Amino acid sequence: MNIKLAIDAMGGDDAPDMIIGGVGLAQKKYPSVFFLIFGDEAQIRPLIVKYKLDQARLRIIHTNEVITGDMKPSAALRGSKSSSMRLAIEAVADGQADAVVSAGNTGAYMALSKIILKPLAGIDRPAIAASIPTLLGKRGVMLDLGANVECSAENLVQFAMMGQVFSQQVLGNTVPSVGLLNIGAEDLKGNAIIKETHALLKESRWVSNFQGFVEGTDVLTGKVDVIVTDGFTGNVSLKTAEGSFTIFKQFLMANFGRNWWTRLTYLLARPVLKAFSAQFDPRQNNGAPFLGLNGISVKSHGGTDAIGFSYAIAVAIDMVDRDVNKLIREGLEQWHADMGSRGQDAVVVPLRAQG
Amino acid sequence: MNIKLAIDAMGGDDAPDMIIGGVGLAQKKYPSVFFLIFGDEAQIRPLIVKYKLDQARLRIIHTNEVITGDMKPSAALRGSKSSSMRLAIEAVADGQADAVVSAGNTGAYMALSKIILKPLAGIDRPAIAASIPTLLGKRGVMLDLGANVECSAENLVQFAMMGQVFSQQVLGNTVPSVGLLNIGAEDLKGNAIIKETHALLKESRWVSNFQGFVEGTDVLTGKVDVIVTDGFTGNVSLKTAEGSFTIFKQFLMANFGRNWWTRLTYLLARPVLKAFSAQFDPRQNNGAPFLGLNGISVKSHGGTDAIGFSYAIAVAIDMVDRDVNKLIREGLEQWHADMGSRGQDAVVVPLRAQG
Repeated sequence: MNIKLAIDAMGGDDAPDMIIGGVGLAQKKYPSVFFLIFGDEAQIRPLIVKYKLDQARLRIIHTNEVITGDMKPSAALRGSKSSSMRLAIEAVADGQADAVVSAGNTGAYMALSKIILKPLAGIDRPAIAASIPTLLGKRGVMLDLGANVECSAENLVQFAMMGQVFSQQVLGNTVPSVGLLNIGAEDLKGNAIIKETHALLKESRWVSNFQGFVEGTDVLTGKVDVIVTDGFTGNVSLKTAEGSFTIFKQFLMANFGRNWWTRLTYLLARPVLKAFSAQFDPRQNNGAPFLGLNGISVKSHGGTDAIGFSYAIAVAIDMVDRDVNKLIREGLEQWHADMGSRGQDAVVVPLRAQG
Repeated sequence: MNIKLAIDAMGGDDAPDMIIGGVGLAQKKYPSVFFLIFGDEAQIRPLIVKYKLDQARLRIIHTNEVITGDMKPSAALRGSKSSSMRLAIEAVADGQADAVVSAGNTGAYMALSKIILKPLAGIDRPAIAASIPTLLGKRGVMLDLGANVECSAENLVQFAMMGQVFSQQVLGNTVPSVGLLNIGAEDLKGNAIIKETHALLKESRWVSNFQGFVEGTDVLTGKVDVIVTDGFTGNVSLKTAEGSFTIFKQFLMANFGRNWWTRLTYLLARPVLKAFSAQFDPRQNNGAPFLGLNGISVKSHGGTDAIGFSYAIAVAIDMVDRDVNKLIREGLEQWHADMGSRGQDAVVVPLRAQG
């Protein structure tokens, strides 16, 4: 594969250090990927030396402008014409890069991605998705995670469709099951939009495997492959799960560190605890693709480290490799064609066999 | 203490078995508490023998009627005049019992509690609260957890006030810090209601320690003592944290059970893993008080077991013991008096020294 990635070097709490460190880790894992690195050359150069990056497989595109974490999306749209984030997204729109990765201001990143890459036909609102680890080892996907604080039933149905394609094509679930996040499993629970969405998804022939409502307890169980929710609830839920992992790990480490005996038992229990981290560590699950855009745009946690950022890069490479956007686009086209010929319906996804 | 508790024996997935088992455990821990048990005597009698309850400290009030899990709150209000749930709540209103505990239908339980016990003056909407374990060992409180799917800024400000009193009086945090659950810490994040609530709490002289926005990652850290949120978000967030604990524990147990060597390391690591469970196990954190009512009403998880139900009983005993409702009422009275003399303000809580 001959993939080129645009990297915003200046977004995130510990940028550009953790960004360049992450690119270094990704270069080791993906020897054929080329990196276009957007940001302040004076800061980036020494880090490239520090992290021993392969200079033949990267190019720095210098800019001083940065979109800060507290900048409003509207301000980011108006100004900052040559910010590292904007230039990196434009590289995808121009065909210079296959995907862009940023750990910067989420609102600005989504707004700029929408303006520059444009939503896919038939998608009113792109969504932030995340692949989530589950007990059974197979991976779920939850969306939206914060792009759309308030959502209509139609938005949520579109999320279901995009999630279905992502689950099938990227995560390998042949007939993905879909659940709608609610505060109870009974039909009478929830607000008006949730109930309307439930009715739309239930009646639809195109969501082949709608399982009804799921609850917060189901986020990590793998009970369904696709969890559909508005951006407010999804953001809080995913961050609660991430926070729970972090707290539980800190608690275990503090208690294993209590005395020489517990430290010894830690060494013996370490393989199991390592497997636990490998499965649930937010760093190793970092990288949230924006779904519903004409181009691949992946958001990294702002608070991650080099290891975490390298995982977000891996998600972008995966998305390019599987040509996910083409598949979502084809799904939408077939949906619209079917709607034209068969009248109104909610969602169609062509369920293709895994290649 | 001479506490009498009303118990709805018929609510919850495994009722009445787990209810009577839970009462049995509570009888051992609280030898002076008397139990009024509402439900089907024919089912309850054998369980009282099975779990060896002290019959001198309980009375069965027989009824055949049960409010089922799928009953709408409106149906529960109209019919079921002698359901076990309704009779148990009425025992509190009549002064026969000091508090009521049920693991039944949450919506019906809240609706009946509101109608029978009545909200406190100044509280538009009672809330479901839960005391949550944190990394540092001190306990936080989050509300609302599902009683109010949609909330106004005024509702949320009232939740902040009630949570402040609960944190101070029951959980022992002298000057409780208060946070508003949102999808980011920056002021510009969130929907209109969240922003309005933020402004009200920030300007208020009566929320002494408002810390602004908190995120899902902060739910278990103890960053703030009181987490304020609407019932939809709070329900999903708490259930996500509970689900995370369950999944993480299942993952660890499965991996420790893999072969004789890992099983041996489990035995050695067991004290630390036990401490982990003791801190975060949802069963040991079971029991969500309804705050803002003229009477103490505690909700148990429907899916818990006897151990979990005994913890919900313990919460009710604690609430009676500390006279929490009187303190919330006094806080509200002082707030209203202050509002009368000083003009509009959001919230007042008298910060009294711990007794």
